[in-house]
Amino acid sequence: MTVNPLDVTSTLLSEWLNALGTCSAPGPGVTRLVYDPAWCQAHRWLAGKARDLGLAVHIDGAGNLYFHDPSITPGNVARPVVLVGSHLDTVIHGGRYDGAYGLIAALLLAAEPRPAGSTAVVAFATCEEEESRFRAGLMGARSMLGQVEGMELDTVVDAAGITWRQALEQARTRGCAGPLADGPRPFAPPFKPTAMLELHIEQGPVLENELLSLGIVDNIAGYRRYRVRLHGEGRHSGTTPMRMRRDALSGAAEIVLAVEAYAKELGEPAVATAGRIEVQPGLFNVVPGTCELWLEVRHVDRQSLAAMEVELGDRCRRIADGRGVNIEIEEASRQEPAALSAEMVRAAETLAAGLKIPHRRMPSGAAHDTMVFARAGIPSLLVFVPSRHGVSHSPEEYTDSENLATGYRFLTELVTRIALAPPR
Amino acid sequence: MTVNPLDVTSTLLSEWLNALGTCSAPGPGVTRLVYDPAWCQAHRWLAGKARDLGLAVHIDGAGNLYFHDPSITPGNVARPVVLVGSHLDTVIHGGRYDGAYGLIAALLLAAEPRPAGSTAVVAFATCEEEESRFRAGLMGARSMLGQVEGMELDTVVDAAGITWRQALEQARTRGCAGPLADGPRPFAPPFKPTAMLELHIEQGPVLENELLSLGIVDNIAGYRRYRVRLHGEGRHSGTTPMRMRRDALSGAAEIVLAVEAYAKELGEPAVATAGRIEVQPGLFNVVPGTCELWLEVRHVDRQSLAAMEVELGDRCRRIADGRGVNIEIEEASRQEPAALSAEMVRAAETLAAGLKIPHRRMPSGAAHDTMVFARAGIPSLLVFVPSRHGVSHSPEEYTDSENLATGYRFLTELVTRIALAPPR
Repeated sequence: MTVNPLDVTSTLLSEWLNALGTCSAPGPGVTRLVYDPAWCQAHRWLAGKARDLGLAVHIDGAGNLYFHDPSITPGNVARPVVLVGSHLDTVIHGGRYDGAYGLIAALLLAAEPRPAGSTAVVAFATCEEEESRFRAGLMGARSMLGQVEGMELDTVVDAAGITWRQALEQARTRGCAGPLADGPRPFAPPFKPTAMLELHIEQGPVLENELLSLGIVDNIAGYRRYRVRLHGEGRHSGTTPMRMRRDALSGAAEIVLAVEAYAKELGEPAVATAGRIEVQPGLFNVVPGTCELWLEVRHVDRQSLAAMEVELGDRCRRIADGRGVNIEIEEASRQEPAALSAEMVRAAETLAAGLKIPHRRMPSGAAHDTMVFARAGIPSLLVFVPSRHGVSHSPEEYTDSENLATGYRFLTELVTRIALAPPR
Repeated sequence: MTVNPLDVTSTLLSEWLNALGTCSAPGPGVTRLVYDPAWCQAHRWLAGKARDLGLAVHIDGAGNLYFHDPSITPGNVARPVVLVGSHLDTVIHGGRYDGAYGLIAALLLAAEPRPAGSTAVVAFATCEEEESRFRAGLMGARSMLGQVEGMELDTVVDAAGITWRQALEQARTRGCAGPLADGPRPFAPPFKPTAMLELHIEQGPVLENELLSLGIVDNIAGYRRYRVRLHGEGRHSGTTPMRMRRDALSGAAEIVLAVEAYAKELGEPAVATAGRIEVQPGLFNVVPGTCELWLEVRHVDRQSLAAMEVELGDRCRRIADGRGVNIEIEEASRQEPAALSAEMVRAAETLAAGLKIPHRRMPSGAAHDTMVFARAGIPSLLVFVPSRHGVSHSPEEYTDSENLATGYRFLTELVTRIALAPPR
């Protein structure tokens, strides 16, 4: 009986995912907020595993990790590398796969031997992607590319009022962050990527539904988020005839359905969601006087997203006007879409077809670190494996070992090809 | 210049309403929760005013107040009386007119001389109607009619865990409640009413809208209240296509609009209200997995209300089924409608027409103490004066002095007639 080296690696993949999942704050599922003790524990554990595999470990000023052949020198940006990785942090009470899968796959893959003439492959783990502690827009990936201004270290603050700079200082004393660079940009990129790849669970139901093993992402959706406030008249529910009401909740309900109908009209990949609603005073016997509604629209195409913004505002205002209810629409946040490398998408499709892996090209509705690299003009690709029932950000998050292994095998082959012939 | 005695009484009415409004816990508007210090202050103030008018004051075991000619003996139920009054308690941060108007009008009216052969007129102030402290279903009016079982004194509890019995004991030490009766029923009715009348602000916009001065109430609506819980799937808003969602909030929004449409279909006096809504987890980027919605339907007709209950449940379930969302409908509370005395309604209409007061017959959408008397088979009537902008249960509650005086004048005349010829 011969042992297939890939089977060995797949076994390691599963074991290490389980082990990394134990690096967590107490509570259900996995909780690793950037720079906290559980995150630092995971950081040290990964560095140890990388050294066991014979890789060198580099920790940058923001706490991003890099695993690479010892012959490569971080800081020597004259020699381009292929970057492969994902994020180390999690949401609160998240699962074992989100981020962790892609970075363990990258770590194992970086240790594999490569044909002569290959571009060096560097695995990475970004420090923060979920924004569960700091809401600073994919700050881990941005710091890898030197996009962070020094001022941000003092303006980005967590819920407890701790600044990014203070949190970093503490991580540094624990050995989980390197020194800051001099000058206006505190993080200097240690590598110059010629291509970037991320393997990730889908976090949605499409692949499972269509019985596919791989999703090759061509575009990552952007979004607009709005806080909509409706002001009607809070009146006694028993004494106010239907025709004399200005009911803020009925207006909001019309908007919820209009937003849903609009996304369905546009068709995939447009989505629109009303995620939160609150009324005042919130009693059985008072017609709601005010209502706050949170809306989000997403699209992979920048112009379509801009058009959605206008149309959504128009529809909301028409509904409010029709009911004599006042409306305020406030933008809460926005993210522009990102197109990934068409050349890498084609290469990935060709490879998947060659390996006879059931796959599809698809958009990513969720934001990922890959967006930051793609926007910086680096040829980038994101690959999905199925999520059971589309569940993520939950202790129930699950991908079976067969799909995990298929994703790993595919990424390994793809990276080998890209390292031999990087995209132009 | 002659002084019109009615003008004098109207001036007193306004002055006393202002004075009674100062008996309040701190904060905006008027707050008098039953048995609390502000309520006891109002209780003592009213008793003092009644004595100034030459009336005797009786305080029953529940803290209800009665003002009557000293020749009448409370407890002598052989001699029927006409009861006229309203409630002394208020909502939190309520207005100066709700309850107070009807009881001050009754107090002044009870002091007026009557023609020989009149049935005695007793004014009253019920201790609790709003249920802002104890939610025990018009417990003040029920105690006046001896409908309360002793057990209730220990099972009815306020938000702080204080029982009705404990709260009453404290009120008794302040002189604001009489002794309890022996036996299974702690409150013995001190008077036997042959008719009952209540003057009240409308608390709705109808009279103002129709430029009328009086509303003669023929029926008081009952209601059903429901907590509706929808269980869908909480999923990532970016990664879950519209066609794969089971969105609890979208389902709830459909129900909100269906409930509104249903009440409009039925026409007045049916009303239906969604007063509260809450979703979990309530984030921009998660399709709501669960939603709780509070619904209420009201109607003056018992059979129509029962039919609304069935139809509402059917429509809610159809909507949930259509979306693959699970639904639970739990009844939170119910109140049956009450028909008021047709004979008294006719007498009131004839009188209003005779006095050339613009008026209409109308239902009451809100519950009132009058319901309890009507349900007990006592010929009962409720009369409304306009509420500015339909606002009540608010410091902004207002009725102008002309409407206050018209209502008082009308009630005085009506009570005079009823005391001479009580309804059969």
